[in-house]
Amino acid sequence: MRAYEIIHRKRDGRAIPPEAISALVDGFTRGEIPDYQMAAFCMAVFFRGMDEGEVRALTEAMLRSGDVLDLSDIPGAKVDKHSTGGVGDKVSLALAPLAAACGVKVPMISGRGLGHTGGTLDKLEAIPGFRVDLPVETFRALVREVGACLIGQTARLAPADRKLYALRDVTATVESIPLIAASIMSKKLAEGIDALVLDVKVGSGAFMKRLEDARALATTLAGIGRGMGKRVSALLTRMDEPLGRAVGNALEVEETVALLSGRGPEDLRQVTVELTAEMLVLGGAAEDLEEARGRVGAAIADGRGLAKLEEIVRAQGGDAATLHDPERLPRAPLRYDVPAPASGFVIEMDAEAIGLAAVALGAGRARVDDRVDPAVGIVVAKKLGERVEAGEPLCTVHAGDRSEPRERIAARIAAAYRIGSAAPPGRPLVLERL
Amino acid sequence: MRAYEIIHRKRDGRAIPPEAISALVDGFTRGEIPDYQMAAFCMAVFFRGMDEGEVRALTEAMLRSGDVLDLSDIPGAKVDKHSTGGVGDKVSLALAPLAAACGVKVPMISGRGLGHTGGTLDKLEAIPGFRVDLPVETFRALVREVGACLIGQTARLAPADRKLYALRDVTATVESIPLIAASIMSKKLAEGIDALVLDVKVGSGAFMKRLEDARALATTLAGIGRGMGKRVSALLTRMDEPLGRAVGNALEVEETVALLSGRGPEDLRQVTVELTAEMLVLGGAAEDLEEARGRVGAAIADGRGLAKLEEIVRAQGGDAATLHDPERLPRAPLRYDVPAPASGFVIEMDAEAIGLAAVALGAGRARVDDRVDPAVGIVVAKKLGERVEAGEPLCTVHAGDRSEPRERIAARIAAAYRIGSAAPPGRPLVLERL
Repeated sequence: MRAYEIIHRKRDGRAIPPEAISALVDGFTRGEIPDYQMAAFCMAVFFRGMDEGEVRALTEAMLRSGDVLDLSDIPGAKVDKHSTGGVGDKVSLALAPLAAACGVKVPMISGRGLGHTGGTLDKLEAIPGFRVDLPVETFRALVREVGACLIGQTARLAPADRKLYALRDVTATVESIPLIAASIMSKKLAEGIDALVLDVKVGSGAFMKRLEDARALATTLAGIGRGMGKRVSALLTRMDEPLGRAVGNALEVEETVALLSGRGPEDLRQVTVELTAEMLVLGGAAEDLEEARGRVGAAIADGRGLAKLEEIVRAQGGDAATLHDPERLPRAPLRYDVPAPASGFVIEMDAEAIGLAAVALGAGRARVDDRVDPAVGIVVAKKLGERVEAGEPLCTVHAGDRSEPRERIAARIAAAYRIGSAAPPGRPLVLERL
Repeated sequence: MRAYEIIHRKRDGRAIPPEAISALVDGFTRGEIPDYQMAAFCMAVFFRGMDEGEVRALTEAMLRSGDVLDLSDIPGAKVDKHSTGGVGDKVSLALAPLAAACGVKVPMISGRGLGHTGGTLDKLEAIPGFRVDLPVETFRALVREVGACLIGQTARLAPADRKLYALRDVTATVESIPLIAASIMSKKLAEGIDALVLDVKVGSGAFMKRLEDARALATTLAGIGRGMGKRVSALLTRMDEPLGRAVGNALEVEETVALLSGRGPEDLRQVTVELTAEMLVLGGAAEDLEEARGRVGAAIADGRGLAKLEEIVRAQGGDAATLHDPERLPRAPLRYDVPAPASGFVIEMDAEAIGLAAVALGAGRARVDDRVDPAVGIVVAKKLGERVEAGEPLCTVHAGDRSEPRERIAARIAAAYRIGSAAPPGRPLVLERL
């Protein structure tokens, strides 16, 4: 089937045979199918969606376009977690060592922050010396010996996805559930994992603002993974405020250490424990979720999680002393509070706006080639449902040389809060489990 | 507004300011906006449509991309007719001389046949010597002196449309009413006309198979023209069988001469008179349609129409003697009949299939660079509602060296007919007038 015919069928909502999707992706990757046909196809997919067979064929073709790791010679279950991205989401930094400490192998290939969402690689690199660009053989050795390794995507991993994403990014075709799902899963399945836990975020700081969209994405992601023989579980979790209190790379490392020392914010702890527990069950390290939660809680309480994080940091070249002495982490030269304009309860937060304020400080990227300042960020003093008096700090800002001026940052943060007279009803952090 | 933002807004169904549409087309024409962004935009337009301001801005930008003729120094109203294309549609060949004979100036820039539809230029070129590639100054002089001139599109007319059409053709974005309408009107409005009559075809031989699609296209076309200060009328006419009986270039010239001699098929005569009468009214050469029809009828009856056609043919280098002696036109070496498989009434015709059978004979083009044989074609013996006995000819085929074999042509034609036991109810030729 020629590319024209594939576009035409998708445009008219007719099914496309999986082998035609494969040929389309292969031709596009080799440069035989031009960008303009692929762009028209992606826009048609935006409007018409894809059925299960199509999205699986798309994922498999992108997966096959590059190297696929084979970790089958490493004993034990290899399990990873993927989050669709949020603000203050430092879960991976604690989850990877906790899961490894509980006997699951974690081969984790992560991304960098873009727009309002942070990235695990940026957070790890806030630790002086930490290297995320390890060769595949080192990655393989550390997964085997340490139990977890966290690196960045190599150029040889799913190159079709990289090329397609670059095209979608300039043709307004990013926001399509099948295209998002195939992009995520083609990279995750290249890691050589046996099982995957998905954290699909929902709310003001997530890509999916609405529960039904998040549910559709989670269903598609899980369907692809299961269709390709992996064990998959998916949680929909609340992202209507930053997770924990720290937003910014070094600040989030510090908060991770607090969590692993039993002192972390409750919401961060709960989401981390839930996701790690899912990994333990999928990886066969626990019989059920209740047992798994107990094991994860114990690994926090007895310090094995923190010890494993230290081991990972040392193995990847980082200065583990920073984990015990936060003053050795990059520190911002300027700190100031953003006061509440009125008294009341925090009834709504625009988490995306908080994320973008952090970008404006230099903690993240507006464009892929922006440089990140590891020291800067925001510490949230008042979260959803909390009482605040006029003039009390809503947030503490850690600013640097390249940060936007104080007035603009403070205005961004203040505008992200809605303060009302009554406390809003509490909502569970885990909204659904698929 | 950047191209990305324009695509994004269209994708989400939000309005785009006219100046942003203009900038998009200008940038695309200059090669600054890449094909892949324009392809994504066109696909978004396919799904979301365009509002009146957007489609007008698109038309104006494509019009402005090239030369726009100024015929204001030529006395009298300049009026053209555009048909959306059909099978056996030779109306322009009689309409242009008739309108000119009745005092309206006809600057007509026409196209070639592609797919199942014929093109006026191909029909004219069946007359030995007839030139359609005249320089603009000759075109201008002939419109002034003869009253009508029929030429092909120059490279300097609406180049943006040419570039955009080539992209749409390979990205499955041709079938979009606003894109079709802007493409047609940008070329027609470049002719320097005061008024335009639109013949929007509906039925099995038309691009628009359904009345509501044809009505939507007619409304959009008329809206663009009127919005740009032109007098426009639009007829929806039936194209559920070939117009007249001849399909094929020289055969259609011969039928045109018959029409202008008062001997043409009734359906062809009626559509030609109606469209020419509209031109007379729009051009101020008649008070109302009734008077206009009378004037056109008189120009047929007294031979002024045929004399004007001879004048046009001579002025454009053609052999006018062919008009009186059809044997001087290109003649096909082989003629055969296609017999009816059963007795009854013709209750349905697939006019597109008849058009494609003519293409298979060599009368038209499957691809833009195919060469046309002027001699070959089909003469329809039995039209809708006519009685036929088994074995009687449905059509007579005029075949040439490059024609498909007789069996395949005969099978194509026989399959295009549906014969039933009762005559279908008659339907008017002009379905609506906008």
